[in-house]
Amino acid sequence: MSEFEFITRITDRLTRRGNGRQSAAGEDGQNSVPGLVEIGPGDDAALVRAPDGRVVATSDLLVEGRHFRRDWSGPYDVGRKAAAQNLADVVAMGARPTALLVGFGVPPDTDVAWAERLYDGLRDECDLVGAAVAGGDVVRAPVVTLAVTALGDLAGRAPVLRSGARPGDVVAVRGRLGFAAAGLDLLTRGVDGPAVLIEAHRRPRPPYEAGEEAVRLGATALMDVSDGLVQDLGRIAAASGVLIDVDGAALPVPAVLGPGGRGFVLTGGEDHAFAATFPPDRALPPAWHAIGRVAAAGEDTAPEVTIDGRSHGLTGWDHFLE
Amino acid sequence: MSEFEFITRITDRLTRRGNGRQSAAGEDGQNSVPGLVEIGPGDDAALVRAPDGRVVATSDLLVEGRHFRRDWSGPYDVGRKAAAQNLADVVAMGARPTALLVGFGVPPDTDVAWAERLYDGLRDECDLVGAAVAGGDVVRAPVVTLAVTALGDLAGRAPVLRSGARPGDVVAVRGRLGFAAAGLDLLTRGVDGPAVLIEAHRRPRPPYEAGEEAVRLGATALMDVSDGLVQDLGRIAAASGVLIDVDGAALPVPAVLGPGGRGFVLTGGEDHAFAATFPPDRALPPAWHAIGRVAAAGEDTAPEVTIDGRSHGLTGWDHFLE
Repeated sequence: MSEFEFITRITDRLTRRGNGRQSAAGEDGQNSVPGLVEIGPGDDAALVRAPDGRVVATSDLLVEGRHFRRDWSGPYDVGRKAAAQNLADVVAMGARPTALLVGFGVPPDTDVAWAERLYDGLRDECDLVGAAVAGGDVVRAPVVTLAVTALGDLAGRAPVLRSGARPGDVVAVRGRLGFAAAGLDLLTRGVDGPAVLIEAHRRPRPPYEAGEEAVRLGATALMDVSDGLVQDLGRIAAASGVLIDVDGAALPVPAVLGPGGRGFVLTGGEDHAFAATFPPDRALPPAWHAIGRVAAAGEDTAPEVTIDGRSHGLTGWDHFLE
Repeated sequence: MSEFEFITRITDRLTRRGNGRQSAAGEDGQNSVPGLVEIGPGDDAALVRAPDGRVVATSDLLVEGRHFRRDWSGPYDVGRKAAAQNLADVVAMGARPTALLVGFGVPPDTDVAWAERLYDGLRDECDLVGAAVAGGDVVRAPVVTLAVTALGDLAGRAPVLRSGARPGDVVAVRGRLGFAAAGLDLLTRGVDGPAVLIEAHRRPRPPYEAGEEAVRLGATALMDVSDGLVQDLGRIAAASGVLIDVDGAALPVPAVLGPGGRGFVLTGGEDHAFAATFPPDRALPPAWHAIGRVAAAGEDTAPEVTIDGRSHGLTGWDHFLE
């Protein structure tokens, strides 16, 4: 199968729905894509509306064997996950995702049906937030490789950075913590349940609405928890030059996480919950769990995260270390 | 070395110049980056100005062993090439490149100095067009993998698509054709010169100014020649629903290309010259070589490219075929 035939097969999926409906081809012979994508796959580049006059852009590379395994995750889940982690990064800036670009590295043994299901997953995850796959590239690679870029629009708002946390702010999280890590731990040990954990590893479910909600609530800092709660809060602490103290008793540790639950909650990545800091006077909706406080870093105290006032030796997920 | 340390080392290169000068860190502790990048590496996502209210976006994946070889190309050249082929795609829409996002897959045996030189190459190629590396990702991968996304701004102009060629238009090219393919052929055969050809394989030199020039000249279609002249003109023919006839005698075939020169010019990819169609009344500057004509596709003639009125059996570069 040539590059052209392979690309045609998978890009067809981007405008076809499970019910067989397909969007009409535009006047240029290009399939129409939804949302803010003016020109989708098929030319030298895509063209995406950026009404704000600025564009939020983020990019992640997923490599088979490191970020997913084909024997543990099906293609549809890999597509959902690859889209989700990039869409969550756009949302973590306080923006609305508009489009994805997908670079797809394909080993010679890859069945086109497997690839089509992956693109179904990319498309369906985009649908959750009104975004669309606008373009990309397909090449040969030794292992399945997904390079996903997500674009987003701030709709006139200021971006919510990691650097805005101020002493006195409340630290809160929205979304699941530790589920994906607990699921990966089960798969690694050859245990096939609870399903909710294994599914959480295969397909994160970022609460995308948390981004704009955090903006409305006046969040001073916002990020998605991709590498583990203490590690990612450490990034807010470092960027903001503050201390963050987590109240251990306030951490949600669901029983389903098992005996290692607290560790998964503190260090597990890839659930793509959102962590934010809010001014102390804000009434937070129930979906947000207040878990700590921001304090000033003194002359003798470097910016860091403590748990119940004490330093911890916990680290998060580092895809890079051997 | 942790992901954090590795990323710190290479992102430092993005704001450091060969003369040792380094941009001052911004108030958020982020290194300032030039041009239209408002927020560069270090947060969940980058923020890039898009004054046009739309953003041009394109993405290519480069995989070691398929798109480059570390024994044939140094890291600086790989960086230049990875940036160039994406910047050329933005220019081929008639837009100005503003930013790159770079996903970098790194095998365990990769020296950080090698990676730093690669980022020097990315940065220096961006400098040619006023763009900057705004963000990205670093992960482990079995072979060096570069996922580059380029963004661009149309400054209020309409994009120049592949679909606008009209019967009667003149087909013209600006930039080198066949040089990179001839250089790759030499390397494949173990021949170490002429240097101009081998250098052309290692580092394409797209004539970036050709994009806005083509817009000013009223180009009806525009693309960069990445997969070979006849194959890429075939894409304009197909998207526009026209015939394109190339005048064989008008093709520039420099003697340095050797006895196979005509073949390299017709089918060689990766020089990233620009091919455009112009209304017949336009006076083209000397850098543009008129090489053919657009004709109507009849009821019995499918859109295609002919050479001196005859069909050809030539194909271009397909990275995908085994």
